[in-house]
Amino acid sequence: MNEASASKTANDGHGSWLTYRPEIKVLDCTIRDGGLMNAHRFTDEVVKAVYETCVAAGVDYLELGYKNSKEQFPKANFGPWKHCDEEDLRRIVGDNKTDLKLSAIADAEKCDYQKDILPADQSVLDMIRVATYIHQIPVALEMIHDAHEKGYETTVNVMAVSTVQENDLEEGLEILAQSPVGTIYLVDSFGSFYSEEVRDLTKQYLAACAATGKEVGIHTHNNQQLAYANTIEAVVQGANFLDATMAGLGRGAGNCPLELLIGFLKNPKYRLRPILDCVESHIMPLRRNMHWGFDLSYMLTGLLNQHPRAAMSYLDTPESERPSIVKFYDEVMEA
Amino acid sequence: MNEASASKTANDGHGSWLTYRPEIKVLDCTIRDGGLMNAHRFTDEVVKAVYETCVAAGVDYLELGYKNSKEQFPKANFGPWKHCDEEDLRRIVGDNKTDLKLSAIADAEKCDYQKDILPADQSVLDMIRVATYIHQIPVALEMIHDAHEKGYETTVNVMAVSTVQENDLEEGLEILAQSPVGTIYLVDSFGSFYSEEVRDLTKQYLAACAATGKEVGIHTHNNQQLAYANTIEAVVQGANFLDATMAGLGRGAGNCPLELLIGFLKNPKYRLRPILDCVESHIMPLRRNMHWGFDLSYMLTGLLNQHPRAAMSYLDTPESERPSIVKFYDEVMEA
Repeated sequence: MNEASASKTANDGHGSWLTYRPEIKVLDCTIRDGGLMNAHRFTDEVVKAVYETCVAAGVDYLELGYKNSKEQFPKANFGPWKHCDEEDLRRIVGDNKTDLKLSAIADAEKCDYQKDILPADQSVLDMIRVATYIHQIPVALEMIHDAHEKGYETTVNVMAVSTVQENDLEEGLEILAQSPVGTIYLVDSFGSFYSEEVRDLTKQYLAACAATGKEVGIHTHNNQQLAYANTIEAVVQGANFLDATMAGLGRGAGNCPLELLIGFLKNPKYRLRPILDCVESHIMPLRRNMHWGFDLSYMLTGLLNQHPRAAMSYLDTPESERPSIVKFYDEVMEA
Repeated sequence: MNEASASKTANDGHGSWLTYRPEIKVLDCTIRDGGLMNAHRFTDEVVKAVYETCVAAGVDYLELGYKNSKEQFPKANFGPWKHCDEEDLRRIVGDNKTDLKLSAIADAEKCDYQKDILPADQSVLDMIRVATYIHQIPVALEMIHDAHEKGYETTVNVMAVSTVQENDLEEGLEILAQSPVGTIYLVDSFGSFYSEEVRDLTKQYLAACAATGKEVGIHTHNNQQLAYANTIEAVVQGANFLDATMAGLGRGAGNCPLELLIGFLKNPKYRLRPILDCVESHIMPLRRNMHWGFDLSYMLTGLLNQHPRAAMSYLDTPESERPSIVKFYDEVMEA
């Protein structure tokens, strides 16, 4: 596979197995996306292990959680990674004197970014990622400006684009391309995209970013066992910001597994060995209480381009009371 | 996704979501490839369920096992699907008065095809698949001729092509293209191919078959979670014979899951519902005693383009005695 052959404008076929694209950045969001499966409650031991592993593995960015509103989401109801308070972050990373950059994500209309996001020089965070549905882009733009003025790198993650009309997406991308955001993410929220769609959308995102200096990112879900395949398809097309999680830990069917992605990327700064250790020692044991990853129910919501909530609710039902998968299929087909 | 847009010679982009390619054939090899994980010992109940499900789901071919030598592989050491004797087949399928065709696979140099493969008019089998390494092609050609003369449809499955030199493969394909074989399979034995490689190889196989009327098939393994992605990449390029297994049951990391593939294909003759039922009722319960599917150890052999046997042996070690995955990594990196 030939990541280097994919320039941002065209695949000229002149790359080789022995070269790589140094612009590629890997973002680990194990704790952030995984937090959607346990109300953001991880032991400090696990969070520290993920942090130290990312440093050792040469990962570029680590995202531990959300900067979401404490009024809408009271602290008592969630673990610390729903809000990423500075003291919680520093308990894990100290002053983070490493090459690993830290990010947090903030959902449009679910955060009090004006007060909860500190100026960058008072925070260990390096990047703010703004998650937005297409109709929230005006709010997202304010958040991007706020984070940018506070001194952060920024990304915008347009969610659920598999349900967005083409014209709306084109217009949304045009607007975002005029903002100061650094990276625009293609997000397959429902795990419903096939590689051909990822290829076409990545090209569309890159075209919208052309001449702006912005990068395109990719964030996938594994409902159809395509999270990794779609991530490398986006790489081949020219996406340079890549989200992944250890053992694919993440909401529902989970995300692109970091261990597969690092195995694929040729940049010698990346190291697979520490990731293997962390997955075995710290992430797989979480399976005793957390149930993420491919399942027929997630496959069906992905296939039908639906939010995974029906499947999550199905799997939350105790196994003895759970209806058959055929009954679930009949229900989601009606939905 | 756009299976119809992919003609055998070029993707002209004129297909649509609402059309499909009627030439596509799906082959279920759940019992055949899964048999490599349990010495071909399945209960008749499971085999019958798979057969009946394939009939109900509109699957085109069902492969239950091997026609391998009883001298090399004594009957006492294996379940019935190592040899696919006519009485075993008929115990499951009767005279198979259905549209589902039946196949068995025969390994070059591991079978007594002259005597063990009956004339087609005395068998419920419709197709013989010849599995061969590149250096066994002369033997494979004799087997193809034998099966063809006996009245069978035939395929040839060239194994482990990820380890074959390009010139050797080109020459092998040229020779096979001159044989009476019906379909030439691209086989990713080690689960090591990325989609770009599958695209290029599928094109190469199609080019070798051009003007012969032969079809190209695809058989994948899931070591890098790419079995399904690579199968649909081959479809898009023009492969028309597609191997898949229920719940991905198969050697090591397993195969392309039939439920994903049927969810993807647009031909209305295919039905997902009976497959979901069979996976839940008959295949998932096998997990109590059989351990197939993605695992870090299979990922590593795939990444390194090695036979999965080191990973299979690693996973056969009782968990309490198994070395860490990092130690396994260090060992396979040395191999």
